[in-house]
Amino acid sequence: MPARAVVLLSGGMDSATCLALARDQGWSCHTLSFDYGQRHRAELAAAEGLAASLGAADHRVLRLDLAAIGGSALTDPLIEVPEAGGSGIPVTYVPARNTLFLSCALGLAEVLDADVIYAGMNAVDYSGYPDCRPEYLAAFQAMADLATRRAVEGRPVRIEAPLIDLSKAEIILAGNALGLDFGLTVSCYQADDEGRACGRCDACSLRRAGFAAAGLEDPTRYQ
Amino acid sequence: MPARAVVLLSGGMDSATCLALARDQGWSCHTLSFDYGQRHRAELAAAEGLAASLGAADHRVLRLDLAAIGGSALTDPLIEVPEAGGSGIPVTYVPARNTLFLSCALGLAEVLDADVIYAGMNAVDYSGYPDCRPEYLAAFQAMADLATRRAVEGRPVRIEAPLIDLSKAEIILAGNALGLDFGLTVSCYQADDEGRACGRCDACSLRRAGFAAAGLEDPTRYQ
Repeated sequence: MPARAVVLLSGGMDSATCLALARDQGWSCHTLSFDYGQRHRAELAAAEGLAASLGAADHRVLRLDLAAIGGSALTDPLIEVPEAGGSGIPVTYVPARNTLFLSCALGLAEVLDADVIYAGMNAVDYSGYPDCRPEYLAAFQAMADLATRRAVEGRPVRIEAPLIDLSKAEIILAGNALGLDFGLTVSCYQADDEGRACGRCDACSLRRAGFAAAGLEDPTRYQ
Repeated sequence: MPARAVVLLSGGMDSATCLALARDQGWSCHTLSFDYGQRHRAELAAAEGLAASLGAADHRVLRLDLAAIGGSALTDPLIEVPEAGGSGIPVTYVPARNTLFLSCALGLAEVLDADVIYAGMNAVDYSGYPDCRPEYLAAFQAMADLATRRAVEGRPVRIEAPLIDLSKAEIILAGNALGLDFGLTVSCYQADDEGRACGRCDACSLRRAGFAAAGLEDPTRYQ
């Protein structure tokens, strides 16, 4: 039986590429998505399709009521999702989101006896998010090395973030090389129910520029 | 306006004492409980009553579907809750639970602009739980110091675990000195809907022994 990996899968390009990489490394991939009250529900459908398309051993959706906490344009209907541009930490930042997602993955990894967690964090395009930085991930690993039964037994779960230093174009080229169909992914913060993108938000701009820089055809469907 | 604290409140004795201590320190206390599919639902009712009784500024219940992950007697109906005794990491250990709870508290602290999180972890009675150890909490703090917008701004959220080194009897005496009514707390892993305890599980044994050692009358209601 191949060793197990928990793969965080949002339905976007980065986590899909991450899943393709994990599979390519020979892991049996157990994908985990979150229903956290995000506006862009098409993400969840995309994640399910990607898990099937990329041969995940199983796919889980964990409900996590972040809207009860609020504080982000992605979960709070009172905060408007901005069009592209702006600097600093974006209003689409969800407080402690990656900490929460990695923590859930850690719990699942322990239950499944998985050796590794694959996460698609990326420090290049998300430089405004504190929890996408390499030093943050190193600190999470140090905490995880003390947090679990596996850790006490000397077999801590390893966190892999293979995209951390890649540009969007490099991520697209890596996924493309592994046969990933980016038409199955959804990036837009305001995608409609069929996964069609708005073409105007930050996420749409990054995605379009990424395909252009990679020199590949952009399979994104727009509204 | 007094500065804000997020207080993790389970409905048990430790977190109730923690809330009493935080209030005594002058914090405006925002309590946070989790509906994580735990068997002992009476905990949640107890938490609500304690928040009101101890003057919390507000009380939130966050739904977190840990049963979707499984792996613990507290959330998995197929794993039996043991009677008192046994050694090592108990089957009532919920994988990565404290990491998840602290992560949610961290997100809420950021949204509320709270300076501190109070958590009732205790290394004495829960020595079998990897995520109740001081070294684990220090590692969580180091991670939190990099994880949030507040941290980037040089104002990281501080995690306080004032019970970490106290025995159950010392916790009871501390709560008692602050006027906490322990009759409002529920410890039993198998409490009935009215919060009456089984009297046989590990949690019941620890609680009973704690009151005896503290020399105080035990207000626990039994089934």
